Amino acid sequence: MTSLNFWIGGKQAVKAAALNPSRKIIEIYATSENFGFINEIQNKVKKKIKITTKDNKSINKVFKTDIVHQGVAAFVEKNKNLELDDFLKLQDKSKDSIVVILDDLTDQRNIGSIIRSCVAFYVDAIFILKKNYSFNNENMNKTASGGIEHIDIIPVNNVCNLIEKLKKNNFWVAGLDLESQKDICKYKWDSKTAIVLGSEGLGMRKLVKEHCDELLKINTNPKIGSLNVSNALAATLMLRSLQKK
Amino acid sequence: MTSLNFWIGGKQAVKAAALNPSRKIIEIYATSENFGFINEIQNKVKKKIKITTKDNKSINKVFKTDIVHQGVAAFVEKNKNLELDDFLKLQDKSKDSIVVILDDLTDQRNIGSIIRSCVAFYVDAIFILKKNYSFNNENMNKTASGGIEHIDIIPVNNVCNLIEKLKKNNFWVAGLDLESQKDICKYKWDSKTAIVLGSEGLGMRKLVKEHCDELLKINTNPKIGSLNVSNALAATLMLRSLQKK
Repeated sequence: MTSLNFWIGGKQAVKAAALNPSRKIIEIYATSENFGFINEIQNKVKKKIKITTKDNKSINKVFKTDIVHQGVAAFVEKNKNLELDDFLKLQDKSKDSIVVILDDLTDQRNIGSIIRSCVAFYVDAIFILKKNYSFNNENMNKTASGGIEHIDIIPVNNVCNLIEKLKKNNFWVAGLDLESQKDICKYKWDSKTAIVLGSEGLGMRKLVKEHCDELLKINTNPKIGSLNVSNALAATLMLRSLQKK
Repeated sequence: MTSLNFWIGGKQAVKAAALNPSRKIIEIYATSENFGFINEIQNKVKKKIKITTKDNKSINKVFKTDIVHQGVAAFVEKNKNLELDDFLKLQDKSKDSIVVILDDLTDQRNIGSIIRSCVAFYVDAIFILKKNYSFNNENMNKTASGGIEHIDIIPVNNVCNLIEKLKKNNFWVAGLDLESQKDICKYKWDSKTAIVLGSEGLGMRKLVKEHCDELLKINTNPKIGSLNVSNALAATLMLRSLQKK
């Protein structure tokens, strides 16, 4: 059985976890240099948190990977994932909404950056293939910089089924696709939109593309071909937020 | 003496190096699975390239770090850096220009993503502190995805001096700053602009901020505080490209 408790590292991620009222913190490790930082958190948080002073080497040991933990780590409990149906039930039909769908992305740092950008631009949920999602991935959680505390990440088995369900619930589904001729800058954002992002190397899978309502391209210098997927999303979300102003 | 030859890994990076007429390739290692990819390159390139078939394990060994090389690596010669004064001499005074200044960024993957986005959005040059720049950094070069072949990366000793020199050459210098009240979405882009990006943790240094003509903020959800620096730049460059259309 996989443990549902896991370590997260890095100041932003630990701070966000501690300040999240629905996140249970089992314990925090911090170096003595981080006393000020820990005090700042404790002053803001009502709940009692167990904090142990450790040196950097001991903190290194709690992580499987070589992440930059900045001398702070929190051992936390997994939160329950929202299910797609619950998400749809909670949707206000008359309100704008934006969600992001990750079709077979595997680079955990990219996924982490995407989570961070999604929170920054008020995305309502991120859908991700179950096989690409580990709630306890250290690199993802560090790169998300606390983002996991502020957005629903909803694992799904099948992206095409998800798209069809979103369509039935009034979402317009737009995929980012290098082969499309439609310039994303000219796109008028619908009141409920799902953005689909393909994998780092191959883009969206063919069948997923076929299920989209629309394929959009970020026109960039042909010398480089494409943007990094998290950068492409940041540029996209900026465009949408501009139009919604 | 540091060697001026270095290994780059990954299909996009190797392909871009091979197709860059001013990049000298000493040798390429490729797994037998990559024969098709290598043939495609050879058909496009006029110069003769020495190619050796190697297995993944042998390719792993040429790299100091654990990068995802996808079974291809190229041993290449360093190209000469352009100097600031040469860059300024080459500038057409009547033409639009955009450059990016990295103030003390150290995460090599972020720097790589930034290089990629800069090429994608037609940035003319990237200025970087000498101490933060290693032309042969494997993670930077992989993440840049071939971007290093298409843009001048100009190392400098002092960011404030650089800013002053750019100002004298008609650049308007705008720093991204979380503490600013000026919404970047309302900013009218000057014909020659330099964007300054601060470090991942701390933002721009105080003195660098003071030298900027303008400080701009990307308004995001206060829950997360900020975007990843490469995502912030991608969003910024998208805004500018939209206004220049």
